[in-house]
Amino acid sequence: MRYFITFSYDGTRYHGWQVQPGADTVQLRLEDALGKVLRRPVPVVGAGRTDAGVHARQMVAHFDYQELSADDCRQLAYRLNRILPQDIAVESVRPVPETLHARFSATRRTYHYYVHTSKSPFLRHYSWQCPYPLDFVAMNAAAALLLGRKDFAAFCKSHTDVKTTICDVRQARWEQTSEGQWRFVIAADRFLRNMVRAVVGTLIEVGRGKMSLGQFEAVISGRNRSAAGESMPAHALALVAVDYPDC
Amino acid sequence: MRYFITFSYDGTRYHGWQVQPGADTVQLRLEDALGKVLRRPVPVVGAGRTDAGVHARQMVAHFDYQELSADDCRQLAYRLNRILPQDIAVESVRPVPETLHARFSATRRTYHYYVHTSKSPFLRHYSWQCPYPLDFVAMNAAAALLLGRKDFAAFCKSHTDVKTTICDVRQARWEQTSEGQWRFVIAADRFLRNMVRAVVGTLIEVGRGKMSLGQFEAVISGRNRSAAGESMPAHALALVAVDYPDC
Repeated sequence: MRYFITFSYDGTRYHGWQVQPGADTVQLRLEDALGKVLRRPVPVVGAGRTDAGVHARQMVAHFDYQELSADDCRQLAYRLNRILPQDIAVESVRPVPETLHARFSATRRTYHYYVHTSKSPFLRHYSWQCPYPLDFVAMNAAAALLLGRKDFAAFCKSHTDVKTTICDVRQARWEQTSEGQWRFVIAADRFLRNMVRAVVGTLIEVGRGKMSLGQFEAVISGRNRSAAGESMPAHALALVAVDYPDC
Repeated sequence: MRYFITFSYDGTRYHGWQVQPGADTVQLRLEDALGKVLRRPVPVVGAGRTDAGVHARQMVAHFDYQELSADDCRQLAYRLNRILPQDIAVESVRPVPETLHARFSATRRTYHYYVHTSKSPFLRHYSWQCPYPLDFVAMNAAAALLLGRKDFAAFCKSHTDVKTTICDVRQARWEQTSEGQWRFVIAADRFLRNMVRAVVGTLIEVGRGKMSLGQFEAVISGRNRSAAGESMPAHALALVAVDYPDC
């Protein structure tokens, strides 16, 4: 049987999601906890990678195991939460059709990037403090240019080994939160490595008046990473949703 | 001239507000920063003490200094924020009548205590995770019994050297937040040491079904600290507002 685990984590002290030699990662912690509860090694496949320091408010991974009742699934989630550190929390474990794959079946991923402008002791761990005023109207006009099926090579980490740099961006807008922050919401079928942080860095250039809308459009069509803005700090980025067909 | 400084802090790594020998406190940091910017020692008087680990989303302190223009005040706030660590933020500095005293003129203080029931990587620093189900209807019925001018000796740290244990509680209720937490809002003219955390600990007893409403009422009227519930952890408590007449 195949199961989906839905969970969240504070990425501050992890080297991202994916297992890598000599590094503490979320996947390592999750596989370790699953192995302890189920008493055998259980590899998990995540919906995608998050980089070092990036958070997940909702992440999904799948694993295969013998048949478990609904009550077994609840027990498993409960026991995983007892073993996992405080910065990783399992929301649920549930059976899914064998054909569903945490990574390949995902139809849409949504990220948030948080920005605040006044010094705040409470926002600093999960939001980037911007030292200059920003024109969010201009930034939203630029964000709208991201929408649709396009080649996003301009925002892709160079030397990345991917077959295609085409993504279908379905949502891209800045909105204000009740805490007085700004949140950039971006959803797409897939994301390239470092893409959200490079997109936000380039939008910030627009918001500072250092890049026009026309120049922003030219950055996208130019497909040249060095023309885009800097990659933003990881701590203000969070994966917030992964969607699957009929799930 | 007298000035009010309005500021906020994450209390996690401080031994509370008040200066005390050999301890890192918020008052120490603020006086140190003021002394550096104004180039002479400037003592500040806070609206009240917060205990070790307790946060403040809005705290007020006063200090006396020569006349400053509105622009000087903005500059001072800006320079203080550059010197103060990331976990203390100045919101404003403004002149007030000489007769206003940060502590004695305050007419009302408001605290929040946060509780969540499901494990959360993002709430854990500022909220208490409750391991058992709670009856918030019963807790709100008990909270209503706190309202009014009463003797709160039952919730006062023993051996505290205060003249009176009478407080006028104007607000006391549990409400849900948009993040799925519960927040206890309590406002009064003054608070005794440890009072909010002892009140919340006793309300939790009611919420667990271990104390009836009648017993809760008897705890208040009994004025005996040992009859009340345990004092709750500091990290979930925050001072959120201090009010002054016409300010």
